[in-house]
Amino acid sequence: MNRDDEHAVVLLSGGLDSATCLAMARAQGLVCHALTVDYGQRHQAEMQAAARLAVSLGAAQHRVVRVDLAGMGGSALTDAGIDVPEQPGTGVPVTYVPARNTVMLSIALAWAEVLDARHIFIGVNAVDYSGYPDCRPAFIEQFERLAALATSAATEQGHTVRIQAPLIALTKAEIIRQGSALGVDYAATVTCYQADADGQACGRCDACRLRRQGFAEAGVSDATRYAADAG
Amino acid sequence: MNRDDEHAVVLLSGGLDSATCLAMARAQGLVCHALTVDYGQRHQAEMQAAARLAVSLGAAQHRVVRVDLAGMGGSALTDAGIDVPEQPGTGVPVTYVPARNTVMLSIALAWAEVLDARHIFIGVNAVDYSGYPDCRPAFIEQFERLAALATSAATEQGHTVRIQAPLIALTKAEIIRQGSALGVDYAATVTCYQADADGQACGRCDACRLRRQGFAEAGVSDATRYAADAG
Repeated sequence: MNRDDEHAVVLLSGGLDSATCLAMARAQGLVCHALTVDYGQRHQAEMQAAARLAVSLGAAQHRVVRVDLAGMGGSALTDAGIDVPEQPGTGVPVTYVPARNTVMLSIALAWAEVLDARHIFIGVNAVDYSGYPDCRPAFIEQFERLAALATSAATEQGHTVRIQAPLIALTKAEIIRQGSALGVDYAATVTCYQADADGQACGRCDACRLRRQGFAEAGVSDATRYAADAG
Repeated sequence: MNRDDEHAVVLLSGGLDSATCLAMARAQGLVCHALTVDYGQRHQAEMQAAARLAVSLGAAQHRVVRVDLAGMGGSALTDAGIDVPEQPGTGVPVTYVPARNTVMLSIALAWAEVLDARHIFIGVNAVDYSGYPDCRPAFIEQFERLAALATSAATEQGHTVRIQAPLIALTKAEIIRQGSALGVDYAATVTCYQADADGQACGRCDACRLRRQGFAEAGVSDATRYAADAG
Protein backbone atom coordinates (compact mmCIF):
# COMPACT_ATOMS: atom_id res chain seq x y z
CA MET A 1 0.00 0.00 0.00
CA ASN A 2 1.39 3.42 -0.91
CA ARG A 3 -0.44 6.59 0.03
CA ASP A 4 2.39 9.10 -0.06
CA ASP A 5 -0.06 11.88 -0.70
CA GLU A 6 -2.23 11.11 2.32
CA HIS A 7 -1.28 12.66 5.62
CA ALA A 8 -2.16 11.73 9.18
CA VAL A 9 -1.68 13.39 12.54
CA VAL A 10 -0.83 10.68 15.07
CA LEU A 11 -1.12 11.41 18.80
CA LEU A 12 2.01 10.00 20.39
CA SER A 13 2.48 9.97 24.16
CA GLY A 14 5.57 7.79 24.27
CA GLY A 15 3.61 4.90 25.74
CA LEU A 16 3.06 1.40 24.38
CA ASP A 17 -0.38 2.07 22.91
CA SER A 18 0.37 5.22 20.97
CA ALA A 19 3.65 3.78 19.63
CA THR A 20 1.70 0.82 18.26
CA CYS A 21 -0.85 3.21 16.83
CA LEU A 22 1.87 5.12 14.96
CA ALA A 23 3.27 1.86 13.57
CA MET A 24 -0.24 0.94 12.35
CA ALA A 25 -0.72 4.32 10.68
CA ARG A 26 2.64 3.93 8.93
CA ALA A 27 1.63 0.42 7.85
CA GLN A 28 -1.36 2.00 6.10
CA GLY A 29 1.16 3.90 3.97
CA LEU A 30 0.28 7.29 5.44
CA VAL A 31 2.70 10.19 5.90
CA CYS A 32 2.60 10.56 9.68
CA HIS A 33 2.99 13.75 11.69
CA ALA A 34 3.50 12.81 15.33
CA LEU A 35 1.93 15.09 17.94
CA THR A 36 2.69 14.98 21.64
CA VAL A 37 0.40 17.04 23.83
CA ASP A 38 2.16 17.90 27.05
CA TYR A 39 -0.72 18.61 29.42
CA GLY A 40 1.55 19.01 32.42
CA GLN A 41 1.73 15.32 33.24
CA ARG A 42 4.27 14.15 35.75
CA HIS A 43 6.00 11.55 33.62
CA GLN A 44 8.42 13.59 31.54
CA ALA A 45 10.32 10.42 30.64
CA GLU A 46 7.35 9.57 28.41
CA MET A 47 7.91 12.82 26.49
CA GLN A 48 11.50 11.95 25.71
CA ALA A 49 10.41 8.48 24.66
CA ALA A 50 7.90 10.07 22.26
CA ALA A 51 10.64 12.05 20.53
CA ARG A 52 12.76 8.92 20.01
CA LEU A 53 9.79 6.81 18.87
CA ALA A 54 8.74 9.41 16.29
CA VAL A 55 12.13 9.00 14.64
CA SER A 56 12.41 5.21 14.93
CA LEU A 57 8.87 4.60 13.67
CA GLY A 58 9.32 6.85 10.64
CA ALA A 59 7.20 9.90 11.39
CA ALA A 60 7.80 12.78 8.97
CA GLN A 61 8.02 15.19 11.91
CA HIS A 62 7.27 15.45 15.62
CA ARG A 63 5.72 18.41 17.43
CA VAL A 64 5.13 18.97 21.13
CA VAL A 65 2.29 21.29 22.11
CA ARG A 66 2.07 22.26 25.73
CA VAL A 67 -1.31 22.89 27.36
CA ASP A 68 -1.17 23.82 30.97
CA LEU A 69 -3.99 21.76 32.45
CA ALA A 70 -1.76 20.94 35.43
CA GLY A 71 -2.78 23.99 37.42
CA MET A 72 -6.44 22.98 37.15
CA GLY A 73 -5.94 19.92 39.34
CA GLY A 74 -8.44 17.10 39.46
CA SER A 75 -6.11 14.22 38.50
CA ALA A 76 -3.29 12.23 40.06
CA LEU A 77 -1.43 12.52 36.75
CA THR A 78 -1.25 16.31 36.77
CA ASP A 79 -1.72 17.20 40.43
CA ALA A 80 1.29 16.47 42.63
CA GLY A 81 -1.02 16.48 45.66
CA ILE A 82 -2.82 13.26 44.62
CA ASP A 83 -0.98 9.94 44.91
CA VAL A 84 -0.87 7.50 42.01
CA PRO A 85 -2.65 4.36 43.28
CA GLU A 86 -0.89 1.01 43.33
CA GLN A 87 -4.12 -1.02 43.42
CA PRO A 88 -6.86 -0.83 40.79
CA GLY A 89 -10.04 0.77 42.14
CA THR A 90 -13.57 0.85 40.80
CA GLY A 91 -15.28 3.53 38.68
CA VAL A 92 -13.32 6.37 37.16
CA PRO A 93 -9.63 6.12 38.14
CA VAL A 94 -7.97 9.09 39.89
CA THR A 95 -5.46 9.00 37.03
CA TYR A 96 -8.27 10.26 34.77
CA VAL A 97 -7.38 13.70 33.35
CA PRO A 98 -10.44 15.95 32.79
CA ALA A 99 -11.46 16.06 29.13
CA ARG A 100 -7.98 14.91 28.11
CA ASN A 101 -8.86 13.22 24.83
CA THR A 102 -11.15 16.09 23.85
CA VAL A 103 -8.28 18.53 24.33
CA MET A 104 -5.75 16.31 22.53
CA LEU A 105 -8.05 15.62 19.57
CA SER A 106 -8.84 19.35 19.27
CA ILE A 107 -5.19 20.25 18.97
CA ALA A 108 -4.67 17.38 16.53
CA LEU A 109 -7.58 18.74 14.51
CA ALA A 110 -6.00 22.19 14.36
CA TRP A 111 -2.75 20.73 13.06
CA ALA A 112 -4.58 18.43 10.64
CA GLU A 113 -6.26 21.44 9.09
CA VAL A 114 -2.95 23.27 8.62
CA LEU A 115 -1.33 20.14 7.12
CA ASP A 116 -4.43 19.16 5.12
CA ALA A 117 -4.23 15.77 6.86
CA ARG A 118 -7.38 13.66 6.52
CA HIS A 119 -6.70 11.24 9.36
CA ILE A 120 -6.12 11.59 13.08
CA PHE A 121 -4.90 8.50 14.94
CA ILE A 122 -5.42 8.13 18.67
CA GLY A 123 -4.35 5.08 20.68
CA VAL A 124 -7.36 4.90 22.98
CA ASN A 125 -8.46 1.56 24.28
CA ALA A 126 -11.89 0.72 25.66
CA VAL A 127 -10.82 -2.64 27.10
CA ASP A 128 -8.19 -1.70 29.68
CA TYR A 129 -9.50 1.83 30.17
CA SER A 130 -13.19 1.12 30.44
CA GLY A 131 -13.50 3.64 33.28
CA TYR A 132 -12.53 6.55 30.99
CA PRO A 133 -15.53 7.95 29.10
CA ASP A 134 -13.36 9.51 26.40
CA CYS A 135 -11.88 6.13 25.41
CA ARG A 136 -15.22 4.76 24.22
CA PRO A 137 -16.29 4.30 20.57
CA ALA A 138 -19.30 6.62 21.01
CA PHE A 139 -16.99 9.47 22.05
CA ILE A 140 -14.66 8.93 19.08
CA GLU A 141 -17.59 8.86 16.63
CA GLN A 142 -19.04 12.03 18.14
CA PHE A 143 -15.70 13.82 17.80
CA GLU A 144 -15.56 12.86 14.13
CA ARG A 145 -19.00 14.44 13.66
CA LEU A 146 -17.79 17.58 15.44
CA ALA A 147 -14.70 17.75 13.22
CA ALA A 148 -16.92 17.78 10.13
CA LEU A 149 -18.45 21.06 11.37
CA ALA A 150 -15.42 22.59 13.06
CA THR A 151 -12.96 23.52 10.36
CA SER A 152 -13.00 25.59 7.26
CA ALA A 153 -11.26 22.72 5.42
CA ALA A 154 -14.25 20.48 6.17
CA THR A 155 -17.09 22.93 5.65
CA GLU A 156 -15.71 24.88 2.67
CA GLN A 157 -13.71 22.25 0.82
CA GLY A 158 -15.24 18.98 2.00
CA HIS A 159 -11.90 17.91 3.46
CA THR A 160 -13.26 15.97 6.41
CA VAL A 161 -11.04 14.21 8.91
CA ARG A 162 -11.43 10.60 9.96
CA ILE A 163 -10.67 9.81 13.60
CA GLN A 164 -8.98 6.40 13.67
CA ALA A 165 -8.71 4.50 16.94
CA PRO A 166 -7.32 1.14 15.77
CA LEU A 167 -6.63 -0.15 19.31
CA ILE A 168 -10.05 0.61 20.71
CA ALA A 169 -11.30 -2.98 20.87
CA LEU A 170 -7.98 -4.81 21.35
CA THR A 171 -6.67 -6.38 24.55
CA LYS A 172 -3.22 -5.34 25.73
CA ALA A 173 -1.87 -8.71 24.53
CA GLU A 174 -3.33 -8.18 21.05
CA ILE A 175 -1.86 -4.68 20.88
CA ILE A 176 1.59 -6.04 21.81
CA ARG A 177 1.35 -8.88 19.30
CA GLN A 178 0.37 -6.55 16.45
CA GLY A 179 3.00 -3.97 17.38
CA SER A 180 5.72 -6.59 17.63
CA ALA A 181 4.81 -7.84 14.16
CA LEU A 182 5.22 -4.25 12.91
CA GLY A 183 8.64 -3.94 14.55
CA VAL A 184 7.82 -1.64 17.47
CA ASP A 185 10.68 -1.60 19.97
CA TYR A 186 8.74 -1.69 23.22
CA ALA A 187 11.88 -1.16 25.30
CA ALA A 188 11.77 2.44 23.98
CA THR A 189 8.21 3.04 25.25
CA VAL A 190 7.32 4.29 28.71
CA THR A 191 4.01 3.28 30.25
CA CYS A 192 4.62 3.68 33.97
CA TYR A 193 2.64 6.49 35.66
CA GLN A 194 5.67 7.29 37.82
CA ALA A 195 8.67 6.37 35.66
CA ASP A 196 11.98 7.83 36.84
CA ALA A 197 13.88 10.48 34.87
CA ASP A 198 15.59 7.71 32.96
CA GLY A 199 12.30 6.13 31.89
CA GLN A 200 12.63 3.13 34.20
CA ALA A 201 9.31 1.71 35.37
CA CYS A 202 8.14 1.25 38.98
CA GLY A 203 6.56 -2.13 38.26
CA ARG A 204 3.81 -1.45 40.79
CA CYS A 205 1.27 1.08 39.41
CA ASP A 206 -1.88 0.10 37.48
CA ALA A 207 -0.22 0.90 34.15
CA CYS A 208 2.82 -1.28 34.93
CA ARG A 209 0.63 -4.21 35.99
CA LEU A 210 -1.51 -4.06 32.85
CA ARG A 211 1.59 -3.83 30.67
CA ARG A 212 3.41 -6.72 32.33
CA GLN A 213 0.31 -8.89 32.11
CA GLY A 214 -0.04 -7.97 28.41
CA PHE A 215 3.44 -9.19 27.53
CA ALA A 216 2.84 -12.42 29.45
CA GLU A 217 -0.48 -13.06 27.67
CA ALA A 218 0.99 -12.14 24.28
CA GLY A 219 3.85 -14.58 24.76
CA VAL A 220 6.25 -11.74 23.88
CA SER A 221 9.30 -11.24 26.09
CA ASP A 222 8.96 -8.10 28.21
CA ALA A 223 11.76 -5.69 27.34
CA THR A 224 10.51 -3.04 29.79
CA ARG A 225 13.29 -1.41 31.79
CA TYR A 226 12.32 -1.66 35.44
CA ALA A 227 13.98 0.34 38.24
CA ALA A 228 16.24 -1.60 40.61
CA ASP A 229 13.62 -1.46 43.39
CA ALA A 230 10.67 -2.23 41.08
CA GLY A 231 7.80 -4.36 42.38
CA MET B 1 -32.32 35.73 39.93
CA ASN B 2 -29.87 34.13 42.33
CA ARG B 3 -28.03 30.95 41.41
CA ASP B 4 -25.09 31.15 43.77
CA ASP B 5 -24.68 27.40 43.62
CA GLU B 6 -24.46 27.26 39.83
CA HIS B 7 -21.10 27.74 38.23
CA ALA B 8 -20.10 28.71 34.70
CA VAL B 9 -16.84 28.80 32.81
CA VAL B 10 -16.85 31.91 30.61
CA LEU B 11 -14.36 32.20 27.75
CA LEU B 12 -12.97 35.71 27.93
CA SER B 13 -10.64 37.05 25.26
CA GLY B 14 -10.61 40.68 26.34
CA GLY B 15 -12.66 41.70 23.31
CA LEU B 16 -16.06 43.35 23.12
CA ASP B 17 -18.03 40.16 22.48
CA SER B 18 -16.65 37.99 25.27
CA ALA B 19 -16.89 40.86 27.78
CA THR B 20 -20.58 41.19 26.93
CA CYS B 21 -20.94 37.43 27.23
CA LEU B 22 -19.47 37.50 30.76
CA ALA B 23 -21.83 40.31 31.75
CA MET B 24 -24.76 38.22 30.45
CA ALA B 25 -23.63 35.13 32.39
CA ARG B 26 -23.36 37.23 35.56
CA ALA B 27 -26.83 38.66 34.87
CA GLN B 28 -28.12 35.05 34.95
CA GLY B 29 -26.88 34.93 38.56
CA LEU B 30 -24.14 32.39 37.83
CA VAL B 31 -20.80 32.19 39.61
CA CYS B 32 -18.43 32.87 36.72
CA HIS B 33 -14.93 31.51 36.23
CA ALA B 34 -13.27 33.47 33.45
CA LEU B 35 -10.95 31.54 31.13
CA THR B 36 -8.56 33.12 28.67
CA VAL B 37 -6.94 30.74 26.22
CA ASP B 38 -3.70 32.21 24.96
CA TYR B 39 -3.18 30.40 21.68
CA GLY B 40 -0.17 32.47 20.73
CA GLN B 41 -2.12 35.30 19.21
CA ARG B 42 -0.32 38.49 18.41
CA HIS B 43 -2.54 40.86 20.33
CA GLN B 44 -1.20 40.59 23.87
CA ALA B 45 -3.00 43.81 24.79
CA GLU B 46 -6.22 41.78 24.62
CA MET B 47 -4.86 39.42 27.28
CA GLN B 48 -4.25 42.27 29.71
CA ALA B 49 -7.73 43.61 28.97
CA ALA B 50 -9.16 40.17 29.84
CA ALA B 51 -7.54 40.23 33.29
CA ARG B 52 -9.01 43.68 34.04
CA LEU B 53 -12.46 42.79 32.68
CA ALA B 54 -12.64 39.60 34.77
CA VAL B 55 -12.32 41.76 37.88
CA SER B 56 -14.58 44.62 36.81
CA LEU B 57 -17.34 42.28 35.61
CA GLY B 58 -17.34 40.25 38.81
CA ALA B 59 -15.80 36.92 37.83
CA ALA B 60 -14.96 34.72 40.83
CA GLN B 61 -11.53 34.02 39.33
CA HIS B 62 -9.58 34.32 36.08
CA ARG B 63 -7.26 31.73 34.60
CA VAL B 64 -5.03 31.93 31.53
CA VAL B 65 -4.16 28.66 29.77
CA ARG B 66 -1.54 28.83 27.09
CA VAL B 67 -1.72 26.53 24.06
CA ASP B 68 1.05 26.96 21.59
CA LEU B 69 -0.80 26.84 18.29
CA ALA B 70 1.37 29.69 17.03
CA GLY B 71 4.11 27.43 15.71
CA MET B 72 1.59 25.57 13.56
CA GLY B 73 1.00 28.56 11.32
CA GLY B 74 -2.00 28.83 9.06
CA SER B 75 -3.44 32.11 10.35
CA ALA B 76 -2.62 35.81 10.21
CA LEU B 77 -3.45 35.99 13.92
CA THR B 78 -0.79 33.54 15.04
CA ASP B 79 1.69 33.56 12.17
CA ALA B 80 3.84 36.70 11.98
CA GLY B 81 4.50 35.94 8.31
CA ILE B 82 0.91 36.62 7.23
CA ASP B 83 -0.34 40.22 7.17
CA VAL B 84 -3.61 41.18 8.82
CA PRO B 85 -5.84 42.44 5.98
CA GLU B 86 -7.29 45.94 6.04
CA GLN B 87 -10.09 45.17 3.58
CA PRO B 88 -12.73 42.48 4.11
CA GLY B 89 -12.32 39.54 1.70
CA THR B 90 -14.67 36.74 0.75
CA GLY B 91 -14.87 33.20 2.14
CA VAL B 92 -12.88 32.20 5.20
CA PRO B 93 -10.80 35.16 6.46
CA VAL B 94 -7.02 34.73 6.84
CA THR B 95 -7.55 35.75 10.47
CA TYR B 96 -9.27 32.37 10.96
CA VAL B 97 -7.34 30.25 13.50
CA PRO B 98 -7.52 26.48 12.80
CA ALA B 99 -10.00 24.74 15.08
CA ARG B 100 -9.80 27.62 17.54
CA ASN B 101 -13.21 27.31 19.13
CA THR B 102 -12.86 23.52 19.36
CA VAL B 103 -9.61 23.94 21.28
CA MET B 104 -11.01 26.70 23.51
CA LEU B 105 -14.21 24.81 24.33
CA SER B 106 -12.20 21.65 25.09
CA ILE B 107 -10.10 23.45 27.66
CA ALA B 108 -13.20 25.11 29.08
CA LEU B 109 -14.76 21.65 29.35
CA ALA B 110 -11.77 20.33 31.30
CA TRP B 111 -12.03 23.19 33.76
CA ALA B 112 -15.82 22.87 33.98
CA GLU B 113 -15.41 19.26 35.03
CA VAL B 114 -12.92 20.16 37.77
CA LEU B 115 -15.18 22.99 39.02
CA ASP B 116 -18.41 21.02 38.54
CA ALA B 117 -19.64 23.92 36.39
CA ARG B 118 -22.70 23.12 34.31
CA HIS B 119 -22.42 25.99 31.84
CA ILE B 120 -19.79 27.16 29.38
CA PHE B 121 -20.27 30.58 27.80
CA ILE B 122 -18.62 31.48 24.51
CA GLY B 123 -19.06 34.80 22.74
CA VAL B 124 -19.25 33.50 19.20
CA ASN B 125 -21.29 35.37 16.68
CA ALA B 126 -22.65 33.97 13.44
CA VAL B 127 -23.62 37.36 12.01
CA ASP B 128 -20.29 39.20 11.75
CA TYR B 129 -18.19 36.03 11.56
CA SER B 130 -20.24 34.08 9.07
CA GLY B 131 -17.04 32.89 7.36
CA TYR B 132 -15.92 30.97 10.47
CA PRO B 133 -17.42 27.47 10.62
CA ASP B 134 -16.90 27.17 14.37
CA CYS B 135 -19.08 30.23 15.06
CA ARG B 136 -22.23 28.56 13.72
CA PRO B 137 -25.11 27.17 15.81
CA ALA B 138 -24.65 23.64 14.39
CA PHE B 139 -21.08 23.57 15.65
CA ILE B 140 -22.06 24.73 19.15
CA GLU B 141 -24.85 22.14 19.35
CA GLN B 142 -22.49 19.38 18.23
CA PHE B 143 -19.94 20.35 20.86
CA GLU B 144 -22.64 20.12 23.53
CA ARG B 145 -23.41 16.58 22.34
CA LEU B 146 -19.71 15.71 22.47
CA ALA B 147 -19.43 17.12 26.01
CA ALA B 148 -22.19 14.77 27.16
CA LEU B 149 -19.94 11.82 26.22
CA ALA B 150 -16.55 13.30 27.02
CA THR B 151 -16.34 13.62 30.78
CA SER B 152 -16.70 11.35 33.71
CA ALA B 153 -18.91 14.00 35.38
CA ALA B 154 -21.38 13.70 32.48
CA THR B 155 -21.31 9.95 31.91
CA GLU B 156 -21.06 8.77 35.53
CA GLN B 157 -23.00 11.43 37.41
CA GLY B 158 -25.25 12.92 34.75
CA HIS B 159 -23.63 16.33 35.23
CA THR B 160 -23.87 17.50 31.65
CA VAL B 161 -22.63 20.88 30.50
CA ARG B 162 -24.67 23.38 28.51
CA ILE B 163 -22.78 25.40 25.91
CA GLN B 164 -24.29 28.88 25.91
CA ALA B 165 -23.59 31.23 23.02
CA PRO B 166 -25.91 34.16 23.82
CA LEU B 167 -24.46 36.46 21.12
CA ILE B 168 -24.70 33.97 18.28
CA ALA B 169 -27.62 35.61 16.48
CA LEU B 170 -27.08 39.25 17.51
CA THR B 171 -25.73 42.06 15.36
CA LYS B 172 -22.77 44.04 16.69
CA ALA B 173 -25.12 46.93 17.49
CA GLU B 174 -27.43 44.64 19.50
CA ILE B 175 -24.44 43.22 21.42
CA ILE B 176 -23.27 46.74 22.29
CA ARG B 177 -26.75 47.85 23.35
CA GLN B 178 -27.24 44.83 25.62
CA GLY B 179 -23.75 45.10 27.10
CA SER B 180 -24.13 48.82 27.74
CA ALA B 181 -27.38 48.12 29.59
CA LEU B 182 -25.46 45.63 31.75
CA GLY B 183 -22.76 48.19 32.51
CA VAL B 184 -19.90 46.85 30.37
CA ASP B 185 -17.13 49.44 30.08
CA TYR B 186 -16.23 49.02 26.42
CA ALA B 187 -13.23 51.35 26.73
CA ALA B 188 -11.60 48.48 28.65
CA THR B 189 -12.09 45.98 25.81
CA VAL B 190 -9.66 45.43 22.96
CA THR B 191 -11.02 44.28 19.60
CA CYS B 192 -8.31 45.40 17.17
CA TYR B 193 -6.34 42.58 15.50
CA GLN B 194 -3.18 44.67 15.76
CA ALA B 195 -3.65 46.77 18.89
CA ASP B 196 -0.47 48.35 20.24
CA ALA B 197 1.09 47.32 23.57
CA ASP B 198 -1.09 49.88 25.29
CA GLY B 199 -4.29 48.41 23.82
CA GLN B 200 -4.87 51.30 21.40
CA ALA B 201 -6.69 50.32 18.22
CA CYS B 202 -5.51 50.78 14.63
CA GLY B 203 -8.93 51.81 13.39
CA ARG B 204 -8.29 50.14 10.03
CA CYS B 205 -8.53 46.34 10.33
CA ASP B 206 -11.73 44.34 9.79
CA ALA B 207 -12.33 44.04 13.53
CA CYS B 208 -11.98 47.80 14.06
CA ARG B 209 -14.37 48.58 11.20
CA LEU B 210 -17.04 46.20 12.49
CA ARG B 211 -16.70 47.57 15.98
CA ARG B 212 -16.89 51.22 14.98
CA GLN B 213 -19.92 50.55 12.81
CA GLY B 214 -21.56 48.69 15.73
CA PHE B 215 -21.29 51.67 18.06
CA ALA B 216 -22.67 53.96 15.36
CA GLU B 217 -25.65 51.67 14.70
CA ALA B 218 -26.28 51.14 18.41
CA GLY B 219 -26.34 54.87 19.01
CA VAL B 220 -23.82 54.37 21.82
CA SER B 221 -20.82 56.68 21.97
CA ASP B 222 -17.62 54.88 20.95
CA ALA B 223 -15.18 54.91 23.89
CA THR B 224 -12.57 52.89 21.97
CA ARG B 225 -9.05 54.22 22.46
CA TYR B 226 -7.58 54.70 18.98
CA ALA B 227 -3.86 55.19 18.28
CA ALA B 228 -2.79 58.70 17.22
CA ASP B 229 -2.31 57.55 13.61
CA ALA B 230 -5.50 55.46 13.51
CA GLY B 231 -7.53 55.31 10.32
